[in-house]
Amino acid sequence: MRRFVADKAKTLINRSRTTCSSSSPITTSTSVLQRLTSSSPQSPAVLRFLSTSSDSMASDYSSTPVTLNNVNPKVLKCEYAVRGEIVNLAQKLQHDLKENPGSHPFDEILYCNIGNPQSLAQQPITFFREVLALCDHPLILDKSETQGLFSADSIERAFQILDQIPGRATGAYSHSQGIKGLRDTIASGIEARDGFPADPNDIFLTDGASPAVHMMMQLLIGSENDGILCPIPQYPLYSASIALHGGTLVPYYLDEETGWGLEVSELENQLKTAKSKGINVRALAVINPGNPTGQVLAEANQREIVEFCKKEGLVLLADEVYQENVYVPEKQFHSFKKVARSMGFGEKDISLVSFQSVSKGFYGECGKRGGYMEVTGFSTEIREQIYKVASVNLCSNISGQILASLVMSPPKVGDESYESFAAEKEGILSSLARRAKTLEDAFSSLEGVTCNKAEGAMYLFPRINLPDKAIKAAEEAKTAPDAFYARRLLNATGIVVVPGSGFGQRPGTWHFRCTILPQEEKIPAIVSRLTEFHKQFMDEFRG
Amino acid sequence: MRRFVADKAKTLINRSRTTCSSSSPITTSTSVLQRLTSSSPQSPAVLRFLSTSSDSMASDYSSTPVTLNNVNPKVLKCEYAVRGEIVNLAQKLQHDLKENPGSHPFDEILYCNIGNPQSLAQQPITFFREVLALCDHPLILDKSETQGLFSADSIERAFQILDQIPGRATGAYSHSQGIKGLRDTIASGIEARDGFPADPNDIFLTDGASPAVHMMMQLLIGSENDGILCPIPQYPLYSASIALHGGTLVPYYLDEETGWGLEVSELENQLKTAKSKGINVRALAVINPGNPTGQVLAEANQREIVEFCKKEGLVLLADEVYQENVYVPEKQFHSFKKVARSMGFGEKDISLVSFQSVSKGFYGECGKRGGYMEVTGFSTEIREQIYKVASVNLCSNISGQILASLVMSPPKVGDESYESFAAEKEGILSSLARRAKTLEDAFSSLEGVTCNKAEGAMYLFPRINLPDKAIKAAEEAKTAPDAFYARRLLNATGIVVVPGSGFGQRPGTWHFRCTILPQEEKIPAIVSRLTEFHKQFMDEFRG
Repeated sequence: MRRFVADKAKTLINRSRTTCSSSSPITTSTSVLQRLTSSSPQSPAVLRFLSTSSDSMASDYSSTPVTLNNVNPKVLKCEYAVRGEIVNLAQKLQHDLKENPGSHPFDEILYCNIGNPQSLAQQPITFFREVLALCDHPLILDKSETQGLFSADSIERAFQILDQIPGRATGAYSHSQGIKGLRDTIASGIEARDGFPADPNDIFLTDGASPAVHMMMQLLIGSENDGILCPIPQYPLYSASIALHGGTLVPYYLDEETGWGLEVSELENQLKTAKSKGINVRALAVINPGNPTGQVLAEANQREIVEFCKKEGLVLLADEVYQENVYVPEKQFHSFKKVARSMGFGEKDISLVSFQSVSKGFYGECGKRGGYMEVTGFSTEIREQIYKVASVNLCSNISGQILASLVMSPPKVGDESYESFAAEKEGILSSLARRAKTLEDAFSSLEGVTCNKAEGAMYLFPRINLPDKAIKAAEEAKTAPDAFYARRLLNATGIVVVPGSGFGQRPGTWHFRCTILPQEEKIPAIVSRLTEFHKQFMDEFRG
Repeated sequence: MRRFVADKAKTLINRSRTTCSSSSPITTSTSVLQRLTSSSPQSPAVLRFLSTSSDSMASDYSSTPVTLNNVNPKVLKCEYAVRGEIVNLAQKLQHDLKENPGSHPFDEILYCNIGNPQSLAQQPITFFREVLALCDHPLILDKSETQGLFSADSIERAFQILDQIPGRATGAYSHSQGIKGLRDTIASGIEARDGFPADPNDIFLTDGASPAVHMMMQLLIGSENDGILCPIPQYPLYSASIALHGGTLVPYYLDEETGWGLEVSELENQLKTAKSKGINVRALAVINPGNPTGQVLAEANQREIVEFCKKEGLVLLADEVYQENVYVPEKQFHSFKKVARSMGFGEKDISLVSFQSVSKGFYGECGKRGGYMEVTGFSTEIREQIYKVASVNLCSNISGQILASLVMSPPKVGDESYESFAAEKEGILSSLARRAKTLEDAFSSLEGVTCNKAEGAMYLFPRINLPDKAIKAAEEAKTAPDAFYARRLLNATGIVVVPGSGFGQRPGTWHFRCTILPQEEKIPAIVSRLTEFHKQFMDEFRG
């Protein structure tokens, strides 16, 4: 009997879990956001989800010591709704389709919710994988067969990298900041990108960008009185990390009317409001290119932001993981460090952390968990604290470290791999640009929908002016109106998007995030299904 | 001028950093430990190190916002002294030797401070690296040259693993707990090890064991009133993690007289003391085989520990990363889960987390950052919280996930790689056993030194009965007596060990931790240099 109950509990657990990639955020940290705003309800669906976990099962664990009443309340407060109802529903439908083909009005689930390119058949960059394989198994480097399997420059690069690793030991813990030679390469890549010096001792290699963001939050947040200015809409890593570290998210709203513009006057207002509530604002987080909003900041705007941080004594946390994802000729990525240095601000003038990841760009190597932060403008003793926190986890994974160095130092003209590399890169980026444009046009053509350009990153964030009747229906279904729309969309078409309430949005406005990542040949079907669904939805609720 | 000062500051920063592998802990969390003990001073060297960072430079950063006065105090409190004075000194000496050969009475630094086997020339297991390389670059799987370079079973295994990954996408984020097929393999490996069922849904793959420990600390610690029972001596990840999460380390002393025995009466006493101080003790951490102490728990002792956790409502955090490092025929590793299940305690009876890592064992793949925790005995709603915390970092690195599955499912009799695999494994483990015995005998033969066996793990932790005159000299040098000894040892011989104060020890006793990892051919030199040094040290201080 006991075993039976256990099995039943496990089934329930499994059912409530995502069973495939789960990087997509669906809600944001409601409670934290609401400390400083009077915004409208955020994703009640998630709150409901958390409270509906099988109560009847809970009692079976009555003799185990950890309960919702004595678990760390910061963990409870943190919301990172990768398991939100939309994704759960998508997985249920996928299961249905497998068990009973034809059971739904579509034959596949189209995941447009996750910035995870290789899960949608994007192929890895060949040169990068060649080098990784050779570094994993250096014994084959000298074998004759290897010449036939690998490009000459990948073999040469693997030798170079191994020479940079003490004892050629790719299986050893590295320096806590990462292998020095790889940091040299990355610093050179940053210099080439920016035209300003970069110091390898400023680089901290990390398992993707997320641990780097956590590290900085850990450093800056001592209590709930410490606040971090974050964009709304935001990537919910920020709200989750701030909640886990017990701080306060101080929201600033991006201006949808001006293409998700970042107005310094808004920063000033929100900072003032936060200060008046006793919040000690420590840092400003900026995501450029934007997630979920896709805007690329103009250099003049970046200068104002740097000036603001300097004036207000804020650390500038620059999430620049989409630096290679820019799709419009009129915009260009400028790192905040380049902007600050070009304004004459040096190491002692502004505290600036730039985050980069191997998960994004044209490479999209999410599973490798590589990335780095470049930390400038901190005193010796504070850098020691950052180093100490990095050291507690020993080091980031060496394959990710190697990949981060490759991303910042790809093949050059004349290298054997250069042409195929350039073709792979161009193929991916131009296809992403076409997909972004097609989807943007499709969204913009829908009744009551406006959609800013995806100038960069991997997402569109269209706004839906939902009819009152739809909002009422959502209320009756005890769900946020955008979650209501997204659920209906999924049920009708198999298309998975993330409700805007997962990222935060101006009260009373409704959005969803849709990636531009599905394979190009599937885009027309997505457009036509979405268009048809939307028409029917509006017909039903237009009132 | 500004640039000059900046460069000078950077030189200072660089000089104060470790420039090679830095996994070795040198102090433990003094302040936390001292909350509940009146132990003698712990590693003042580290405190001094922190306070001597170039004050003259600090003022240059006067216009930057983050200072020691406003940084998260939990970060300040955390101590993970990988940069303690001994390792700093070793790096300085290594630099000296390179610049001026012959400048010291030894010609190389012998690192005995770090559990990082491949940094000391241990070679990776060939089969594991073959599979990793093939999974990194699956395009070569079908090529004829590949047959000549890779074993047949590594090719087959790579195909199997790729088939388990949705879309064969090793570059995609996986499920937050790790790829389901790999978790199936690991669960089977656990079943084969224990003879009891294991559920893949209980496995959380992580970037090494450290993030898994942090995850559990994050779950359990809500405030400084939440306590975790930890062994003293301990691996300082525990004290560091507890400090970072703002909890209280409740120490229990291992009994050196009985081979670092874990006495339940000591657990009871410390629990009672902690409770009387208002500490809500949440969990018991046990490291088996022990780090830094090298003991392997007897099964009967493990049963008492399980009983104690059950009775007192404590989560049992079982650090079992050295499960494959047992060197004495009379001892055997038993997982706590096997012990609990064999006592009749099932899923609903005891909350138990087992940590495993690819960094240890005979494989020693520290740089790959692979590992997992097996989480049993938590209610559905608490598991959802653990899952949520895991999700915030998306997933662990896929190469580490693959390696964790390989470690729990190595080649079998009949596989092409089996014989070479078995020979590599046996070669490493038997050499480690010999090195452990030689070093133990050497330590035991020294005047005033007693040394328990390294039954398992990778360390010896000899006790030095330091003469009063040495203790006095250490006091005058404002350093802990064991740090004083370790520094003298290093200066005289180039041998790097970690002072016992880095791990905690009974007040008034002094130890050091020495790994058994240096190459076997170097052990005789280590023994003779150490013996000679010790004799001279005792002659100098015998009084």
